[in-house]
Amino acid sequence: MKTDRETTVGILGERGSFDHQAARDLVGEGVGVRIEPNPELLVAALERGDLDRMVLPIENAVTGSIHENYDRLRRHALWIAGETQVTLRYSLVARPGASLASVRRVAATLAALTHCQRFFEQRPHLEPVVTAEAGVSLLQRDGPVTLAALVPCFLARWSGASVLIEEVGDDTGNATRYLLLAARPVVLEHADKTSLLFVLRNAPGALFRALGAFASRGLDLTKIESRPLRGRPWEYAFYLDVLGDPRGPVRAALEELGRMSQELRVLGSYPEGLRRGADREAV
Amino acid sequence: MKTDRETTVGILGERGSFDHQAARDLVGEGVGVRIEPNPELLVAALERGDLDRMVLPIENAVTGSIHENYDRLRRHALWIAGETQVTLRYSLVARPGASLASVRRVAATLAALTHCQRFFEQRPHLEPVVTAEAGVSLLQRDGPVTLAALVPCFLARWSGASVLIEEVGDDTGNATRYLLLAARPVVLEHADKTSLLFVLRNAPGALFRALGAFASRGLDLTKIESRPLRGRPWEYAFYLDVLGDPRGPVRAALEELGRMSQELRVLGSYPEGLRRGADREAV
Repeated sequence: MKTDRETTVGILGERGSFDHQAARDLVGEGVGVRIEPNPELLVAALERGDLDRMVLPIENAVTGSIHENYDRLRRHALWIAGETQVTLRYSLVARPGASLASVRRVAATLAALTHCQRFFEQRPHLEPVVTAEAGVSLLQRDGPVTLAALVPCFLARWSGASVLIEEVGDDTGNATRYLLLAARPVVLEHADKTSLLFVLRNAPGALFRALGAFASRGLDLTKIESRPLRGRPWEYAFYLDVLGDPRGPVRAALEELGRMSQELRVLGSYPEGLRRGADREAV
Repeated sequence: MKTDRETTVGILGERGSFDHQAARDLVGEGVGVRIEPNPELLVAALERGDLDRMVLPIENAVTGSIHENYDRLRRHALWIAGETQVTLRYSLVARPGASLASVRRVAATLAALTHCQRFFEQRPHLEPVVTAEAGVSLLQRDGPVTLAALVPCFLARWSGASVLIEEVGDDTGNATRYLLLAARPVVLEHADKTSLLFVLRNAPGALFRALGAFASRGLDLTKIESRPLRGRPWEYAFYLDVLGDPRGPVRAALEELGRMSQELRVLGSYPEGLRRGADREAV
């Protein structure tokens, strides 16, 4: 990264959002954060060099791949320089002096409401109030003690607000996977995961043979995704994530895959950042 | 289908929509059509027996799979009894007596505007007006001659309106694939395509071996899709479409796949309905 000015990472979400937490996890505390809610403008700022890195959500454990961002990886020459997952956990916060007994109304974004349905089912006396942004503005010292807000735990911790319940949320497995993106390839010391996209030549069994390049070398695939090719109805580009040393058998697999592909692009090699269980899924 | 009352097919879109055209292509002219814009209510009506069939969009050639409908195939015990593709073509229509020269404003849904951007770029004197429904109500005899509407060609043909331009649209390859769904399995005479979903046991190379069940028998896969498993972060259910006689090698491949799957469900066997080119893509 540049050294003549503060390093800056761009995110889509507001301050204290899960996107912000992902950025902090990926680049650390001492890095400037710029918010740009429009993903195309965020990518443009990275490409212009106004940002050193950007953070993009790519997949949610419940709702699945974020396809418009997969398409962005193909449309733009971006490089994946890292990944992390953020578990979507909310805290119930209120102004200092408020208590769980005093609260009657709870401000929450639509996403927070969706993730915390059971919380409201179990507390019918609490009235949910939908807000566009995670009610940071509610956390003022002179606000009403009847009002609380469901905000990302990350935001709750540094907001100065009073945390009434530490963790609220229906689905403990709900997490979003984020990518750290650079405008140019970055060589990382501890890279053990490689993301790539490819378009195969038209032949029966083509995808099977493509996956064979990895299976024959004992390489684990952790994700496969397909997206339509513009102007070629019912044809697809494939995205794969593969584990292994990118300078070892992964490289040989990519050379083999390249010979059977119309298009093959390495999107990045980076340290695997998903906290999976011992029974990590391989596809 | 039942014979004691008129056969009824349910669709999501309004009369004259692409969904309606898909239903007509799939079940013919002499069948009753019921419109229910809420897909969950549509499925419920099919399951209750209020509908004999329903039509669901599953994939667009430009924007890709319609994932919420893939999830519906898993959540509900639906059976695919047919498929078709509808090319998204629009016509410019106006009241009888209007001409291309008299038109100043063009009513269109957001989808129609998106598909016909070049039409407006080439005609800067025409002002687009966004409407919630395809401006059927505009097609009245006493409407202004300055107003036209961009409507699906299918709607234009039976609307009685004056067709000013037969086909408007940016992307000639843009089409949507629709499924015909039944509440119970249906055996079809000319079935040559089978859709299935499976969840694999957790092992490296598992997907490769799963695809091998088809590749080793020379069977063509035309589509693969993955969707997250609820409560099992970063694990997936796979959907496959495979061509071939469902009573022949496809059945043997399914038996092999079943032995390596935690879950395997045949979603339906039906005649392939996609008008592909000679170089039909196989994955």
